[in-house]
Amino acid sequence: MTDIATLGLYGLGTMGSALALNILEKGFGLHVSNRSDDVVDAFRDEAEQAGLADALSPHHDLEAMVRQMPAPRAIILMVPAGGPVDATIERLMPLLDKGDTIIDAGNGDFNDTRRRTRSVEAAGLTYIGMGVSGGEEGARNGPSIMVGGTTDAWTAIRPVIEAISAKYEGQPCAAHLGPDGAGHFVKTVHNGIEYADMQMIAEIYGLMRYGMDQPPGAIGRTFETWDNGSLKSYLVEITGKVLQAEDAPGVPAVDAILDMAGQKGTGRWTVIEAVKMGQSATTVEAAVAARSWSAEKPLRETGEALFDSEPDPVNLTEAQMEQALLAGRIIAYAQGFRILLAASEEFEWSLDPARIAEIWRAGCIIRSALLDDIAEAFRGAPPHDQLIFAPAFKPMLKDSLTALRSVVARAMEAGHPVPALAAALGFLDTMTRARGTTDLIQAQRDFFGMHGFERVDGGKDRHGPWWR
Amino acid sequence: MTDIATLGLYGLGTMGSALALNILEKGFGLHVSNRSDDVVDAFRDEAEQAGLADALSPHHDLEAMVRQMPAPRAIILMVPAGGPVDATIERLMPLLDKGDTIIDAGNGDFNDTRRRTRSVEAAGLTYIGMGVSGGEEGARNGPSIMVGGTTDAWTAIRPVIEAISAKYEGQPCAAHLGPDGAGHFVKTVHNGIEYADMQMIAEIYGLMRYGMDQPPGAIGRTFETWDNGSLKSYLVEITGKVLQAEDAPGVPAVDAILDMAGQKGTGRWTVIEAVKMGQSATTVEAAVAARSWSAEKPLRETGEALFDSEPDPVNLTEAQMEQALLAGRIIAYAQGFRILLAASEEFEWSLDPARIAEIWRAGCIIRSALLDDIAEAFRGAPPHDQLIFAPAFKPMLKDSLTALRSVVARAMEAGHPVPALAAALGFLDTMTRARGTTDLIQAQRDFFGMHGFERVDGGKDRHGPWWR
Repeated sequence: MTDIATLGLYGLGTMGSALALNILEKGFGLHVSNRSDDVVDAFRDEAEQAGLADALSPHHDLEAMVRQMPAPRAIILMVPAGGPVDATIERLMPLLDKGDTIIDAGNGDFNDTRRRTRSVEAAGLTYIGMGVSGGEEGARNGPSIMVGGTTDAWTAIRPVIEAISAKYEGQPCAAHLGPDGAGHFVKTVHNGIEYADMQMIAEIYGLMRYGMDQPPGAIGRTFETWDNGSLKSYLVEITGKVLQAEDAPGVPAVDAILDMAGQKGTGRWTVIEAVKMGQSATTVEAAVAARSWSAEKPLRETGEALFDSEPDPVNLTEAQMEQALLAGRIIAYAQGFRILLAASEEFEWSLDPARIAEIWRAGCIIRSALLDDIAEAFRGAPPHDQLIFAPAFKPMLKDSLTALRSVVARAMEAGHPVPALAAALGFLDTMTRARGTTDLIQAQRDFFGMHGFERVDGGKDRHGPWWR
Repeated sequence: MTDIATLGLYGLGTMGSALALNILEKGFGLHVSNRSDDVVDAFRDEAEQAGLADALSPHHDLEAMVRQMPAPRAIILMVPAGGPVDATIERLMPLLDKGDTIIDAGNGDFNDTRRRTRSVEAAGLTYIGMGVSGGEEGARNGPSIMVGGTTDAWTAIRPVIEAISAKYEGQPCAAHLGPDGAGHFVKTVHNGIEYADMQMIAEIYGLMRYGMDQPPGAIGRTFETWDNGSLKSYLVEITGKVLQAEDAPGVPAVDAILDMAGQKGTGRWTVIEAVKMGQSATTVEAAVAARSWSAEKPLRETGEALFDSEPDPVNLTEAQMEQALLAGRIIAYAQGFRILLAASEEFEWSLDPARIAEIWRAGCIIRSALLDDIAEAFRGAPPHDQLIFAPAFKPMLKDSLTALRSVVARAMEAGHPVPALAAALGFLDTMTRARGTTDLIQAQRDFFGMHGFERVDGGKDRHGPWWR
């Protein structure tokens, strides 16, 4: 495989233009284009102002861009997921030569990425599905990059990708994780964990605000403190900032914001793919549900009026909150990595969980102190590949679990919704019980549907006494 | 539309042969066939012994059966979901004449049913997707039947379907619910509610067994008592029987059963379709997760050994358990009906929730006293179509909610997994809070991704002070 001769980027939206400036800044030549001319012109001006236009070749349409790029080309697509990606690939394919590479750097559904890899590579081209995390700031200054594709394809683009990626102690937060959809799948699960972590933070905020009667600014200062401890992470850091921000003097910024969000894309995909593989990620499910339900505000207003439901105060300490959030976060990561390992087996990707944890240590939204420990834990091959069983995590969980238990119990008793934290606890309590209660479910299924079951003594009788 | 001249049934497994005997018993002529000859012969013997062979025409292959059936024909398929249904349709289509009807009476994925309806009806045939609930006993003596297809198709098969269905106070528990996939979708959600209800029953059993130190027989007697109250239902009834059954003298039947179940098919489909429509059914999600996790027994054994986790006793009463289970059940139904109404809007099915509740009152696995109240509640058009807001349910929930709160809080504090009951409470607490905590999530998303938000005051500024 020869190295890439020329690099192009199509789609100069927020993420696309940030990534393009990053590439130019690292000294690579770059052709760019966009659906509309004025965006290309605006980007050229932006690059000039940043002193980064020397190696820039702007083009007013995709066809012109490809024609003026010597082969072998690599073209990064930064267009909306779904139809727009397919449409752009369709336009690109007749323009490209064998050996050229298409890189989808958006949030792709990995099923689409697998399909596109097959069809693009059948035409003698190379296809890469690349997850990029870190928001606009990450794309501009160094995101975490998750690459799916062939080893040859990775070798060719590796110098560019490693150069533009975030660095953790000097090491690039970018890696070739596996073939076809592996990169986009890992990015999807990254976002799933992000959903869960954000939801658990919001639940803790809600408890402190409405159960402990603390104003947002004070809660923000507590988060700021936590960012110096075991919760150290980008999301805790920005929560501290956001909660201390004011919309107007004396008016907390959060109080100006409507409490409605949507759920779609990556959070939903994580839930669906996990369930398909029998790996329910209940913390992510709870977070996706909470976002869905938040959108039903008129309904919630009716609910409050009808039930006249004011939650009670809770008697909990900041230290308990901190520990509960830590336990919840560990469990959300544990569920995320379970999905990754299940997919790795299902699709024969040979994902390396430690490597994934390593490239998440900087650049991405879920970057946290914990990820260094997670990488080490997976290097140590924990029992059954379960993070919660890793020697370093078991004591951490045992300590923080008491707090999680108290926080969830007090919150639910007092009427504060903590669905993601409760889901985390439910997972841990289930996974640490050798004997559960599914024997009853199996008995019911056999009773009404003659489904049969296995016996604890290994006996051959598959049906209960009700059928004898 | 002419009425059906001849009726056929292909697939004489447990459900197929039970349904065939039911049809014969109601006085209809029936042609039957099966993939293997001996099954057909065995069924003929069974029908003869039951004195039901007079109107039976057994055939050794599908082709022979169709040839000997005068048109217009209606052929019921009782073959495994997925590939076998497609393969049978492919074999059938060239054999049939315009005006003939294919009825898929298995548990179909409604997406498949929609696709098959399009392709079969394009060939001038009629396609019906029909959900049948009630296990073998229901199929034999009267199941609940959920029909999807055109009105003409329904009119033609209605006399047969109503005759074989269960009856509630003399009324058939069968209905035409909407076009194409509507019947199979409603059956899928029925099963989703079944998953949730069974899981919540198992959680209550686990609490009484391991938290209150009661033996299965005593718990079974309590369930038997509950079956005379507001929990009256088939699942509570059989739980009472199952828990009192013995595998050998002094050995509870449940203790002979391995606590491992699988999750697949309808439970999983309910979760996936709900999430796709932004209608997370968290009680079903929790039940599907619990079944998945139960299958990981070696892992749970490691977990128990590592965490040395013995749950503590709980100080709760049977009355609290009963009320908690009632609240959980109401909420599981509420979530199920939310999915149905969302699908009805999405696919323009005009589903009638009251009618669905009515046909679930007898024959099916989730039949319960509550369904009569649910039918009435939906006839009264509750605010936002929410069951939990219906005048009859609000007071029921307000009373039982305190018990649910105590049960969940005590259980989680003591280390007993109650994920479905906790999910139910999380839903109610979220839906009765006008102001949630998603404002913080929106703030975080705006901070790291410039996603923007809406303001409570309707102002146009979509970004936080961190971007000013």
